[in-house]
This record gives sequence, C-alpha cells and structure tokens, in this order.
Amino acid sequence: MRYELYYWPSIQGRGEYVRLALEEAGAAYIDVARRGNGVGAMMRMMEAGKGTPPFAPPFLKAGSLVIGQTANILHYLGSRHGLAPKAEAGRLWVHQLQLTITDFVLEVHDTHHPLGPSLYYEEQKPAAKRRTEEFWKARVPKYLSYFEALLAANGGKYVTGRRLTYVDLSLFQIVEGLRYAFPRRMKAFERKIPGLVDLHDRVAARPNIKDYLSSDRRIAFNEDGIFRRYKVLDK
Amino acid sequence: MRYELYYWPSIQGRGEYVRLALEEAGAAYIDVARRGNGVGAMMRMMEAGKGTPPFAPPFLKAGSLVIGQTANILHYLGSRHGLAPKAEAGRLWVHQLQLTITDFVLEVHDTHHPLGPSLYYEEQKPAAKRRTEEFWKARVPKYLSYFEALLAANGGKYVTGRRLTYVDLSLFQIVEGLRYAFPRRMKAFERKIPGLVDLHDRVAARPNIKDYLSSDRRIAFNEDGIFRRYKVLDK
Repeated sequence: MRYELYYWPSIQGRGEYVRLALEEAGAAYIDVARRGNGVGAMMRMMEAGKGTPPFAPPFLKAGSLVIGQTANILHYLGSRHGLAPKAEAGRLWVHQLQLTITDFVLEVHDTHHPLGPSLYYEEQKPAAKRRTEEFWKARVPKYLSYFEALLAANGGKYVTGRRLTYVDLSLFQIVEGLRYAFPRRMKAFERKIPGLVDLHDRVAARPNIKDYLSSDRRIAFNEDGIFRRYKVLDK
Repeated sequence: MRYELYYWPSIQGRGEYVRLALEEAGAAYIDVARRGNGVGAMMRMMEAGKGTPPFAPPFLKAGSLVIGQTANILHYLGSRHGLAPKAEAGRLWVHQLQLTITDFVLEVHDTHHPLGPSLYYEEQKPAAKRRTEEFWKARVPKYLSYFEALLAANGGKYVTGRRLTYVDLSLFQIVEGLRYAFPRRMKAFERKIPGLVDLHDRVAARPNIKDYLSSDRRIAFNEDGIFRRYKVLDK
C-alpha cells in the first residue's frame, strides 16, 4: 500500500513528525500537497459531509482510512512499521509520550503566536517576547528534562529502551527545531540535555533519515512553520 | 477492577473528561487525590525513575498500567466500556475527534494564559483580553462549527452516528464550560450550534451523568480550572 500524506507543502510543521516516521520506515508514500493541485485535493478532503473529514492537516490516507491528528497517525503507523511496540501497554506508553511532545510543539508555536493563530506574528511581537521568556525559563526545562530523565532511566539508547520508536524521531526534530529557531538560547541549554543531544545525533546518522535530510523531500525550516527564527526572541 | 484516577482535587480541568467517561460507564474508580494524602501519592507517581512516569495529571491506574494524557486514557477506556467502537477504524476516528477537542481545550486555557502557564492571570490581563477576542472571533466558530457539521452529517443524534461515545461526553463539557466562563458570549453564539446544544441537554439527562452532576463527586467550576469566569473577558 502506498500512503498519501496530506500536509501544507511549504513547511515542516506538524507534518514533519509523520514524514520522519514514514522515511525511517522506508514506507511508500506521496506527499500529496507538494504535487500539482495537491493543496486543492487536501482542502476538499476537509469539507464537511460524509466520511471522516479531518479538522486540519496533517492527515494520512491509508487505503480507505483517513487518519487525522499527528499523534494519531503515528499511533497507527508505529506498530505496523516497527516504530512502536505491538502490545497494548507499550503502544499506549509511546503514544502518551508523543502526546506530551504534541503539547510541547503547541507551546513552541505559542512563542510567536501568544495572542492566537489567527493574528500575524507582527501583530503580537511584545507578547511573543514575554511568552518566549517564560517558555525558556519554565517550559523548555520542564519538558526536556522529563525526556532526558526518561532516556537516562531506560539505559540512554532510546527514550523507551533498546528499540527506536517514533518518539525518538520526534525528539530529534525537537532538538533540530530549537537549534534553528533559538540558536543562542539552545546552545546554552544543550549542556543540560546531553542524552537528548546524543540521541539527536544518532537519529540523524541513521541511513534512511540521513538520506531524507539531504533530499529535497525535506523542506527547509522557515518563518511560516512551527520553529521560526526571529532574532529578537533569541536574545 | 477498580480504576484509580489521579488528578488535581479542586478543579474539573482536563480530568473532567475522564471523570465523565468513568461515570457514564458506571465504572468503579477512586479519585485518588481527593482523599487524604492523595496529592502526595500523585506527585510521587510522576517522579522520574522506573516505569512510565506521566508528565502531568490526569493519569489513570488500571491494574498494572499507568496511562497518561486525557485523550489516551479515553482511548483506553472507550472500547472497554462501550464508549467507542471496537474496530480499529472507528477507534482511530473517535480518538482523532478527541484530540481535536484537546486542541480546543488548550486554546480555552490560553484565553486566560496567553503568555504562558507559568505566570498568573493577573500578570497577563491585557494579552488575555486580546486572545479572548480572537478566540471568539475565529476559533470558537471554527471548532464548534466543525462538530456541529459532523453531528448533522451523521444524523443529529451523536457526533459519530447512532451511538454515544466519549466525544459526546466531552462536547457536553465544552458547552457547559463555555456557558460558565463566557455566559454572555456563549448565549449569543448558541444559536449557531443548535445541534450541539441539543446534544448537551441529552447528555446531561442521561441517568448516570445526571446522578454524577448532582453529586459531590462533580467539582464546581472555579477560577483555577480551564474554564474561568472573568467578567472582563466576557464583555
């Protein structure tokens, strides 16, 4: 089966967590909206009516299934492609961790959009500055220390133990994204999360991920995505 | 099996979606943190180390499993208690809808905490006012119209068709919460979501829910939870 991934064609965004899983798995997929008329096709699938219209991208078409919400897509893909345990307890645990990453990703987005996703960044710069301060003071340490501690408690190789899961791929993206958006702050912070930095490096070196990152299937970071580099927020 | 629910003892918050499901199902459970020393027990379970420590409440102990993240808990409970389909496609769809509600709940929280969860509301009142404006102008219509349209497309009884799921219980809580936090705004808005209002009323009248709502197990809304009544935000 060839999957169809539907996501905005010009950003990594939330779709990137799915792309990384598909790439690591070597799964056959089309990134639909990056093809001619693909965005139109994506919008039509979100129209209300019959079936299971998603609220927002990303969503994945897998045969007759249409699955929305990043973590839900990974939950579906994980046990099918060796990126999550097959037993229920393990599946739930990995999914729980991914949902915690989902929460963190939303907080990353809120650093530049504290007054809401429907206003431009330019309309909320002072609030973005304050939110970013809080984010680095309280939230980054809380979330990343949690994952750092899990990694250490489980032997240091992968977050849930000896086998890679989609959570490790997502944590790679978190480190990569924070480095892009906040190079100065992140540089200072990385000494507190040596395990995650090491995990990041090992994920980046995996053959399928390495190939993906150097391909044109990997969209570059930019200031329309979740991780945005605004100098004033990285003081 | 008697479940153990761990959540803050003085608010409905994110735990309420789980409480509603447990109550509708007539499941045996203890609301651990509402008992003597329960908060201490909850905090200890979140300590890093062995096992699967949750990042934050709510979490549910089900036998030897400890399951965190509201939507994940409902995903676990749903098919076991007749509150979600048993087949994978249906389970994923209901879970996807719950994750969309999760996103909305976070946006509700952001109306009074736009600059971050680590500052007090009193430190971010002007930003809260702007975020709330955007919330009611753009976000409430987008989310609630989505669910209203789904409800209509599926026959008007429950959001996913002829059987109640935990998503319907959560939508009851959304209507209830918006009515509490924003009585004036919500009153004006309700004419746009007659189906959801009707669903709310039917959920409230279900025997187990009715019994729960009038019991002292239901904590009253207050200004420490997700839905907070601040007059200035409801102008």
